[in-house]
Amino acid sequence: MTPEFEVIEHATPAISKPTYLIVGLPDAGLVGSITTEFLIENYGLKEFGEVYSTKYIPPIMHVTDGIAKSPLRLYYSQSPGIIVFHAWTALPSNAIYPLAKLVVEYSKKYDVSKIISITGLPVQNRLEIDKPKAYWISNNAQLSVELEKTGLMEKFGDGYIAGPYAPILMESWRAGLDNFVIAVESFLDLPDPEASAVALEILSKYIGFKVDVSSLLQQAEEIRERIKGLMEQTKKELPSYTLGKPMTYT
Amino acid sequence: MTPEFEVIEHATPAISKPTYLIVGLPDAGLVGSITTEFLIENYGLKEFGEVYSTKYIPPIMHVTDGIAKSPLRLYYSQSPGIIVFHAWTALPSNAIYPLAKLVVEYSKKYDVSKIISITGLPVQNRLEIDKPKAYWISNNAQLSVELEKTGLMEKFGDGYIAGPYAPILMESWRAGLDNFVIAVESFLDLPDPEASAVALEILSKYIGFKVDVSSLLQQAEEIRERIKGLMEQTKKELPSYTLGKPMTYT
Amino acid sequence: MTPEFEVIEHATPAISKPTYLIVGLPDAGLVGSITTEFLIENYGLKEFGEVYSTKYIPPIMHVTDGIAKSPLRLYYSQSPGIIVFHAWTALPSNAIYPLAKLVVEYSKKYDVSKIISITGLPVQNRLEIDKPKAYWISNNAQLSVELEKTGLMEKFGDGYIAGPYAPILMESWRAGLDNFVIAVESFLDLPDPEASAVALEILSKYIGFKVDVSSLLQQAEEIRERIKGLMEQTKKELPSYTLGKPMTYT
Amino acid sequence: MTPEFEVIEHATPAISKPTYLIVGLPDAGLVGSITTEFLIENYGLKEFGEVYSTKYIPPIMHVTDGIAKSPLRLYYSQSPGIIVFHAWTALPSNAIYPLAKLVVEYSKKYDVSKIISITGLPVQNRLEIDKPKAYWISNNAQLSVELEKTGLMEKFGDGYIAGPYAPILMESWRAGLDNFVIAVESFLDLPDPEASAVALEILSKYIGFKVDVSSLLQQAEEIRERIKGLMEQTKKELPSYTLGKPMTYT
Amino acid sequence: MTPEFEVIEHATPAISKPTYLIVGLPDAGLVGSITTEFLIENYGLKEFGEVYSTKYIPPIMHVTDGIAKSPLRLYYSQSPGIIVFHAWTALPSNAIYPLAKLVVEYSKKYDVSKIISITGLPVQNRLEIDKPKAYWISNNAQLSVELEKTGLMEKFGDGYIAGPYAPILMESWRAGLDNFVIAVESFLDLPDPEASAVALEILSKYIGFKVDVSSLLQQAEEIRERIKGLMEQTKKELPSYTLGKPMTYT
Repeated sequence: MTPEFEVIEHATPAISKPTYLIVGLPDAGLVGSITTEFLIENYGLKEFGEVYSTKYIPPIMHVTDGIAKSPLRLYYSQSPGIIVFHAWTALPSNAIYPLAKLVVEYSKKYDVSKIISITGLPVQNRLEIDKPKAYWISNNAQLSVELEKTGLMEKFGDGYIAGPYAPILMESWRAGLDNFVIAVESFLDLPDPEASAVALEILSKYIGFKVDVSSLLQQAEEIRERIKGLMEQTKKELPSYTLGKPMTYT
Repeated sequence: MTPEFEVIEHATPAISKPTYLIVGLPDAGLVGSITTEFLIENYGLKEFGEVYSTKYIPPIMHVTDGIAKSPLRLYYSQSPGIIVFHAWTALPSNAIYPLAKLVVEYSKKYDVSKIISITGLPVQNRLEIDKPKAYWISNNAQLSVELEKTGLMEKFGDGYIAGPYAPILMESWRAGLDNFVIAVESFLDLPDPEASAVALEILSKYIGFKVDVSSLLQQAEEIRERIKGLMEQTKKELPSYTLGKPMTYT
Repeated sequence: MTPEFEVIEHATPAISKPTYLIVGLPDAGLVGSITTEFLIENYGLKEFGEVYSTKYIPPIMHVTDGIAKSPLRLYYSQSPGIIVFHAWTALPSNAIYPLAKLVVEYSKKYDVSKIISITGLPVQNRLEIDKPKAYWISNNAQLSVELEKTGLMEKFGDGYIAGPYAPILMESWRAGLDNFVIAVESFLDLPDPEASAVALEILSKYIGFKVDVSSLLQQAEEIRERIKGLMEQTKKELPSYTLGKPMTYT
Repeated sequence: MTPEFEVIEHATPAISKPTYLIVGLPDAGLVGSITTEFLIENYGLKEFGEVYSTKYIPPIMHVTDGIAKSPLRLYYSQSPGIIVFHAWTALPSNAIYPLAKLVVEYSKKYDVSKIISITGLPVQNRLEIDKPKAYWISNNAQLSVELEKTGLMEKFGDGYIAGPYAPILMESWRAGLDNFVIAVESFLDLPDPEASAVALEILSKYIGFKVDVSSLLQQAEEIRERIKGLMEQTKKELPSYTLGKPMTYT
Repeated sequence: MTPEFEVIEHATPAISKPTYLIVGLPDAGLVGSITTEFLIENYGLKEFGEVYSTKYIPPIMHVTDGIAKSPLRLYYSQSPGIIVFHAWTALPSNAIYPLAKLVVEYSKKYDVSKIISITGLPVQNRLEIDKPKAYWISNNAQLSVELEKTGLMEKFGDGYIAGPYAPILMESWRAGLDNFVIAVESFLDLPDPEASAVALEILSKYIGFKVDVSSLLQQAEEIRERIKGLMEQTKKELPSYTLGKPMTYT
């Protein structure tokens, strides 16, 4: 493992094949975070690990049911085989590269088939969009062919991806692992549960599980309110992630 | 011991079991600092140690009765068995993680049963609150059950804790030690002796000693005046502790 | 190779002699970047390598046809023998020196005859200039004689060159390699495809291949629009490159 | 010796016992600096050493009689046995801790009996005070008893001391050496020769030598003018010394 | 040699004794730079070395006659024996101490008799001064006697010297080498060729060569115009050199 991170596992999960590692980190519109939090709370995922780092995780603990835990935690479901890598807090920009290495090394440990990242793609006219479009970005040509065939998303085409998901694409490619990003049109600095709903539907069809996003859509206002603190933290890290541009831009 | 801290003990205290280590560091409302200072000055605690660090303690000495000492000192009472870890000055934010390690390693040395941290929980409407509410945050499930049973505080529920007490929760859990935080509703950047009085009453009932907080309440105005310099110092460190949020937030 | 960069080659290119390594990095007017991007997309150059660095390349991936890749990549044509070293993103100023070493060491690996850098020379009255003038800056006297003979550009004369191309001149001289810079009058912080057209014509005559820059000139407006994000990123790095002066000044 | 300082001695002084090391560094009101400079120039002290450091001393040389020397120098008188550690320039705040170690290690080399530091104690109403009061801060209880007996100063009581003299108190205590601070009420950022006159009278009575401070008081205006540059430099370092509070505060 | 600098010599100069090393670095009024540049261009000095450093020299190359070279170069004349250490660009303030070591170590290699530095001494009323006065600052008492005898300059007396020439005085003294500074009254942040003319006349009489400064004075306006970019760069470094005070002050 990347030496400056330590993964503490409370249990060794039995996970069926193929195994998907889904990464939900706070960035544009918190699209990734909202998606994985919804999975954790609505699909009986079991918490089994915490990530510990005095260098890359700020001195903030996430409290759940009165108990303080690391804000970077691991969850799984046995079948379909899913590991969720979820951050409950914004991460400092110096953590981006080492975190990418951690995600990839951890995926190898559990022989993960695909790493799936979920992010927002900030668009100016988000308010006027009813159903945000989703795009894929892959890390190799064969995976691109597969994704093209699913018809679930459009190809991102040409452009850039910056922020925490960018180096995971590179590191996983170097390790011979498939990784793709689901980038859904979203707000930049407003939590965007509607964009997460789009990501969830794609995920469920891709992996093959059932999802009812209606509760997510009903609670959209409430979610926006609840995680505005996380959005504030995240905004502070966005500029250094992105060298002056939103997370992802074409 | 964490190599960049050195604990200098002037005496080896004999402390009865169970032993509690109470941590009072300056953060929101100085609730922790005021509480432990009151204990030190009103319950015959004996000073027995100083913490020395050229890296994590700023070049400020605390002068007491004309003698300069480290601003980070240790006190104890034999029975009930209490060690107090008290900071007379604000600590720089880079000290947070190493300090947490120090507190936990030191607790192991004295076979401490419980580490108890005291903090303020800033609330907007503090002025309208007569009797601030207190919450517990624990670092493991069994301790949560115990705290629930005491009925002394409410469960914190879900949220975040940031600042100096946060990593103590994690480090003590990793070391197999019980740690809980008493978080009392308070001002953010005004010293809040009334919140400390609430913490003291809880502490006295939990540990089992008598406390008369009336003198604390009578001197509230005087205390606020006396430690406004410490509050100023602490405010400067708060932002970097908390990534844009008060110490503790729900 | 410079240890903090890693060059990953997808293929080993067969390249005829003499071999030219052309460097296109974003600086004044993006003259270099636009030139090498035009070569890549219009002359059938083959991509064969990516540069990897967690220290000197920001966490930004360039996405092309849906696939994320390093923003620093290598292309070649077999005949004439050309290697293009092209950056799709702005590079942080601390990368300048190590990048120069990388370029030179890599040139030695492929026994490159000449390293050719392309840059803009910001001039105040750019708007009034129809056909920007081009100048050469060389790294040794013998090469100066050769360049003088070609009559393709004027001699830069006396002055300074700052930014990413400057240390390549020194490092290549130390390694006994010829390197010259084509500096074309340009805007400072507006993309300048017209200046790139001048550089392309010089390049084509110098190396001996045919170029039709009319499409470049026709698409000038479109290019300016498409890469304004890159120009923004680059502007942020310009001040630290140049100690208060544009890239190159007389 | 602290490795990043080097003390260059031009002569080995013969100093009678008891030996006092007097530290004069620029801080509040330049009280320490003015005091030791007056001693150097009026009591026939001999210069015998220079302190050299490329890390902790800024690239500034003090020129005296046309010759450039280190701005941190050592002077002595044989009888009474006095070593003066005098800084002719402001020192950066990162020098505070290592300088304290240097002072203490050097004191051990010459078997110093007491280290005496001189500082200003900024008070708001300085203008209204005719004869500034002086206080002592000691580093151990036995020394406190001695100082109490002399009746030369009042006890500082409770409070804080920050800045360059603070860690000397701690380091000397750790080394088993007596150290006390003479803190005289003063301006914060105006040179205060009148406060230095008070310190000089106390020093002369404590050590046992004659002093005529009338010339110091006559030249007060001239001194203020001459060292306003040093005061400016020192003001720039004060904030980082003191975490938002004047040098010393109650 | 100081490891982070490398001196590349294109030729090994034969230099008659006594040998003088003259240092011309950009600081107040660019007095040193203008002086050594005038020597280089008017007295047939031969270029024989370049200084290379990726740490202390910014990524700026000096272009002369179309060829890029290090901005820190060495020149000599055989008789009188002179080595000139000339910087064509401003140097970052972190280079000051290592550069001083380099100058001194290099002087020892060529058995230099005297290191002579030339600087400006900023004075408020420079405009009203027709013939700026020159002062010497030496690094040892014997040299002071020699300089006093020449009658070419006044003694600087008491005060401070800051900036790049200051630590050369200390380092050369530590190495047993004579070093003196010619400090001529000058502007702070306007190039001051008239002050350089004064320095040149002193140099020529001290070393014993003929100089005609009339061309320097005639070209004063042109020089000021030509090097205003260098003055701008230098101004940016001045504040960190000097801790809030001009280069040299009394």
